[in-house]
Amino acid sequence: MRKIVLGLAVSLDGFIEGPNGEYDWCFTDQDYGLSDFFRRVDTAFLGRKTYEMTLAMGDNRGGGFPKLKEFIFSTTLDKVKDGATLIKGDIKTEVEKIKKEEGKDIWLFGGAGLTTSLMNLGLIDELSLAVHPVLLGGGKPLCQGLIAKIPLTLINTKTYSTGLVSLTYELEKR
Amino acid sequence: MRKIVLGLAVSLDGFIEGPNGEYDWCFTDQDYGLSDFFRRVDTAFLGRKTYEMTLAMGDNRGGGFPKLKEFIFSTTLDKVKDGATLIKGDIKTEVEKIKKEEGKDIWLFGGAGLTTSLMNLGLIDELSLAVHPVLLGGGKPLCQGLIAKIPLTLINTKTYSTGLVSLTYELEKR
Repeated sequence: MRKIVLGLAVSLDGFIEGPNGEYDWCFTDQDYGLSDFFRRVDTAFLGRKTYEMTLAMGDNRGGGFPKLKEFIFSTTLDKVKDGATLIKGDIKTEVEKIKKEEGKDIWLFGGAGLTTSLMNLGLIDELSLAVHPVLLGGGKPLCQGLIAKIPLTLINTKTYSTGLVSLTYELEKR
Repeated sequence: MRKIVLGLAVSLDGFIEGPNGEYDWCFTDQDYGLSDFFRRVDTAFLGRKTYEMTLAMGDNRGGGFPKLKEFIFSTTLDKVKDGATLIKGDIKTEVEKIKKEEGKDIWLFGGAGLTTSLMNLGLIDELSLAVHPVLLGGGKPLCQGLIAKIPLTLINTKTYSTGLVSLTYELEKR
């Protein structure tokens, strides 16, 4: 079955954005495994706000960004752009159906609301964090609104010369 | 010069206590480098609340806890227990004086208030985190009240079979 993978850059103290929404602390000097990651996925899940943000950016997400089949999760939208699929119904049922379809793994692109929903439903399979060597002291936390703590199984670590540590975990099934 | 070292157990999402103050998620099945750590320190820094907590616990901190020279930081206390030293004055001056004294490294035992003060003053030399494979989703954050982000230099990583990852950083001098 296809896996849903959440990949994020995070500060050592667990923030995905700084206190003013900034992510200027994220390293861009090398690939950090991103090309490999893009090769294993062919589908992306986007929450409504994230989808609208990508639309506003004109879908111009920079070089190397793969062509993905997109699923947009929203209870308020009535239609989405050509080629994308709107998911309005019961998330659990819909996501389990997509996971059983043929294809590569699925990139949970964000945002926070969709991530929380999928985490609480036990639908995320893998979490891959690029832990940056910085303390931000505040900002947007990695996880919000969990209904219970989530035990993880470490499956891979990689340390880069810049001090970035890539940690990959499987989420325990509930 | 002696180093001030902050050593903490932390969840992957950056909490040192769970939403209800719990730390039942902390692994106790093996040493995780604690014996080595205890051998390199001979002094502990305690904030007032942490000091009072250790007093209430009858100083019984369990087996293997080393005998340390204790410095208690407080603006409100007038005296501390025999053998300990009260630091009431200018923290920066006092701490820099202690760091220049002969001795092993210094364990910043806590708590959050003292840690924040020392971090903002650029007086902490090393941060050693035992990153536990769990998402807590809330609780007491690793860092609070930083006046600016703090860049770190990764100096060591160790991965344990249980999925605990030990990450050690030097704090950049400011």
